[in-house]
Formats: sequence, structure tokens, C-alpha cells
Amino acid sequence: MNFQQKLENIIQKNNSLLCVGLDPDMDKLPKHLLNAKNPIFEFNKAIIDATHQTVCAYKPNIAFYSAYGLKGLRQLKQTIEYINDRYTGIPIILDAKRGDVGHTASYYAKEVFDVYAADAVTVNPYLGFDSVEPFIKRKDKGIIVICKTSNPGSSDFQSTEVSTGIHLGGELAIAPKEKSERLYMLVARKVIEWNQQYGNCLLVVGATWPEELKKLRDMAHNMFFLVPGIGAQGGGVKETVENGIREDKSGLIINVSRAILYASDGEDFATGAQKAAEEYRNEINKYRL
Amino acid sequence: MNFQQKLENIIQKNNSLLCVGLDPDMDKLPKHLLNAKNPIFEFNKAIIDATHQTVCAYKPNIAFYSAYGLKGLRQLKQTIEYINDRYTGIPIILDAKRGDVGHTASYYAKEVFDVYAADAVTVNPYLGFDSVEPFIKRKDKGIIVICKTSNPGSSDFQSTEVSTGIHLGGELAIAPKEKSERLYMLVARKVIEWNQQYGNCLLVVGATWPEELKKLRDMAHNMFFLVPGIGAQGGGVKETVENGIREDKSGLIINVSRAILYASDGEDFATGAQKAAEEYRNEINKYRL
Repeated sequence: MNFQQKLENIIQKNNSLLCVGLDPDMDKLPKHLLNAKNPIFEFNKAIIDATHQTVCAYKPNIAFYSAYGLKGLRQLKQTIEYINDRYTGIPIILDAKRGDVGHTASYYAKEVFDVYAADAVTVNPYLGFDSVEPFIKRKDKGIIVICKTSNPGSSDFQSTEVSTGIHLGGELAIAPKEKSERLYMLVARKVIEWNQQYGNCLLVVGATWPEELKKLRDMAHNMFFLVPGIGAQGGGVKETVENGIREDKSGLIINVSRAILYASDGEDFATGAQKAAEEYRNEINKYRL
Repeated sequence: MNFQQKLENIIQKNNSLLCVGLDPDMDKLPKHLLNAKNPIFEFNKAIIDATHQTVCAYKPNIAFYSAYGLKGLRQLKQTIEYINDRYTGIPIILDAKRGDVGHTASYYAKEVFDVYAADAVTVNPYLGFDSVEPFIKRKDKGIIVICKTSNPGSSDFQSTEVSTGIHLGGELAIAPKEKSERLYMLVARKVIEWNQQYGNCLLVVGATWPEELKKLRDMAHNMFFLVPGIGAQGGGVKETVENGIREDKSGLIINVSRAILYASDGEDFATGAQKAAEEYRNEINKYRL
């Protein structure tokens, strides 16, 4: 089953647009887990067991594993295998933000889809089409292109005004008079174009930018958006759903990491996470109606 | 010793601006190595032993290791340890093109500098300052920001015309009449600004764009540029040196991967690589004079 079908099915089944970001931070794990052989995996396993009926996806960010070397990455593999074995219907988004020239990008595609068996991946658009193409060619997978990110620095380049004049041979031949757009909108337009082939592209849009989210929804009526930035980063659920929801009341994968993972830091962390996840799911659903 | 000093020293000692890209491709390794326990490491070791007097840096691209899972990454670690033990003076650039929001980026910084002990790293600017800052804070390390890449897709966004009007509160308050620049130039200007703090930033500029290389050299007189795209990707040595060289006849790290690694595919691959590396170094030096 391809990523989009898997996603649509679980959204129905769990009545949820909530994604839990599996970003384990050794400094924040409950103390009683630290002596386990695989503390990150044990932590994830408990979080997954507690939340699997409440989510539409899990999103491990590979940085939180690779920072702990091979033993960290081994636990990422264990985590993904656990989800695929036990909770087959839940898609796994590997947040890796990869991007390199075409030949190298094909090796990154092997990393995320063959080594880790993820259903979807986040990629960076700065290197252009041939850096994303090797991912897109894996037509059963979801390719989630970074568009407008939740962090403060996202304004440095993503919100820059770009010209949409007519280019000939790479040179700007006719300069635009009034029409102009932000870089993230140009990225979105290109991704809409790239999406024509297999329909397997999505966009990352931060919850901290509700106006931009609305503009992007107006451009990409049917596309799924992965929305990080809720909770610790300051984005609001209401604004996100109201500005980003599709006509069919779906189309969003709303990620929450820290506010769920560390809802409680004691031995009851999994119960705390379960409760927090249910609250987020219900709050999201309240505004979907 | 910090990255810049290490780099300046080895450029002098080996009289070289050549960087060898350690991008091992299992499909291209000499057949007699494939039965070794660690074929990638054995390949790299032979290449390093044959070229260590001819280079100013080694640049493994992590994609070529992570595509082979944990056993690939173990051989990346082995390779870096080998260089650090045996050829201490040669800096190692980990080509990883990482980029994520600030909190996550600090985990990527642990990956490249603590897990792999690289001297420098390539990073992607699309997420803006807070995504690069955790790397820059490692002031002894080299932070090489992707600016204008060698691939065809680099024109999709990097060469887009951006407005340099006056922005107030994130909005374009005064639109520019004539002055405008390409996105890669805006990136370069920002990096020049970020570089004020520790002087540890560099730029990636593809050899396939000699005019752009010249423009960037005019903007960043003293900065080191990492230049990929020579050889297999079609960039020329003459144009690269003539357009990119600093006044002091230095300031370039010119990377060649495939044309050196696979100069010969037989048992004499290391001798072939040595010969090819010497030819590249000498050709570069011819135009430096």
C-alpha cells in the first residue's frame, strides 16, 4: 500500500490528524529508563504503545538518533521495525531534510527508504529538481518538501520577495512590474508541478505562519501539508486548522513532539503522553468540524 | 588547531588546493576488494595512502556511507579515524548538507563533530540563521554553506532574482526599482554577515558556474570556497581557478571525486588515483601562478 493510501486509511480509522514526533532527547528521558540497554527504543516503544490509536503518523527526526552514533541509529531502526511489525497501518515519516545533487540524492533515497524502510521523508528544495527527483521516483513513498518552516530563521530566505518575470536562457528577459511572490510560494509552485507525475509530494508548512498556510492552501487545494511548530515552538491548533484544512476536512498532518513526549517526566510518562496526545487530537478535531 | 589553520598549513605543505571526495560506490569498487570485511574502508585507505601528499583535504559525502546502513557508517568512522591517526594534518570535510530548525540542528552538529570528529561540514541555508548557528558556534570547525551548487537544478531556486528593497516588519516597504540580485548572492551576503563572529564560514560554489564564482569572489574577497563539479560533472579547472582564486593565490578547495577514485578500476586503482590526483593538483597549480 502506498503512503497516501496508508495515511488516508489511518486518518479515518483513528479519526486523527495528529502526528507524534519521535525526537528522543537523552537529557529529557525519564531517569528510570537510562539504565536500559536501549533507552531510546524503550522510550519510543512505550510512547507508541500508548498513542497508536490516537495518531495518523509517527515522525522520528533522524538527528536525534544520529547524534548518538551507531547505537542511536540502531534504535531508530528498532523503532521503525516495531511500528511496522506491531502497528502496520501507521505510516512513518523520516524527518531527515536531505538534499544533494542528483547522483548523491539517489544514495540518500536508499538510506531513508531501504535502510530505514520509512514510508515518507522530508527533503530540502534548495538544490532544485534533480536533488528531489530520486525521491519522487519512489512513487509509493511520500516526498515532503520543506516550504515554509516554523523557526525564526525561516524569514531569512524563504520569505524573500522573488521576481516572477520572464526568464530566457536563465537570464531575466522581462522584469516584472508588480507581480512578485515570496520564495516559499515559488517553491510550492514548483512542487505542485513536480507532483504531476506521481501525486506523491507534500509540503512542510510551520504552524507559526497561519497566513502563509492559508496562501499555500489556496495554491495547493488537494495537497497534504505536514505542519510542525505546535506546542513548544508556539504555533496554535485553532489557527492551523482554520487556515490549513482542506475542503474535505483533511489534508493536514499536525506534528507535536516535545509537548507529548515529555508531558510527564516520571515513570508515568507514557500515560502522560497518551493523555496529551488525546487532548491534541480532540482539539484538532474540534476545529475540523 | 582549528580548521582554517589546519587548511592553510596543508595547502603550503602539499602545495595543493585539491580535495579528494571519498564517495565510495559499491558498484564501482574494484572487484578484488568486494570480498574484504570492510571493502569501503579498504578502498578509502588505499586511496588515502596514495594521495595524502597531493591533497589539502578529504571530503567524504555521508550519503555514500549511510546508504549501506550501519556497516557503511562504521566504515566512515574508520576512514576518518584512519586519516586523523595517520595523517593528522589533513582536514576532513564531512559533506552532509544538514539543515534543520535550531534545536534539531544542534543534534546534527553533535553528529558531524562529535560522532564523526569532522573538521568541517557542509550545511544548507534554506532554513536560515538559527539552522546554521549551532554549527557556527563550534568555532574551531569550518562551516561550509551551500550557495550555488554544481547541478542543473541549482537554477530552480538559487538563481532566482530576489528583491533587495527595504523590508519593515517582514513586509516589503519600499520596492526596488532596478537593484536586484540572485538568491545565491543574498545567501552569500548573509553568510559574510554570519562569518563576522568567528571567521569560520565558507561557501560551496560549483565549478560549473564560472561567472557566478567570479561574482562571489568579488563579494567575499577573503573567504574560502569549496568547489565541487570538476570532472564527471563538467566543470573546468582553468575557469575555476581564473575566476575563483584569491589575491594570495589561495582560497579554493577544489574537489574531485569520481575522476580520481575510479581513474583505474583494476588492482592498480590506487596508483591510478595517485596519478590522477597529481595531474589535477598540477593543472590547478599551473593556473594559480
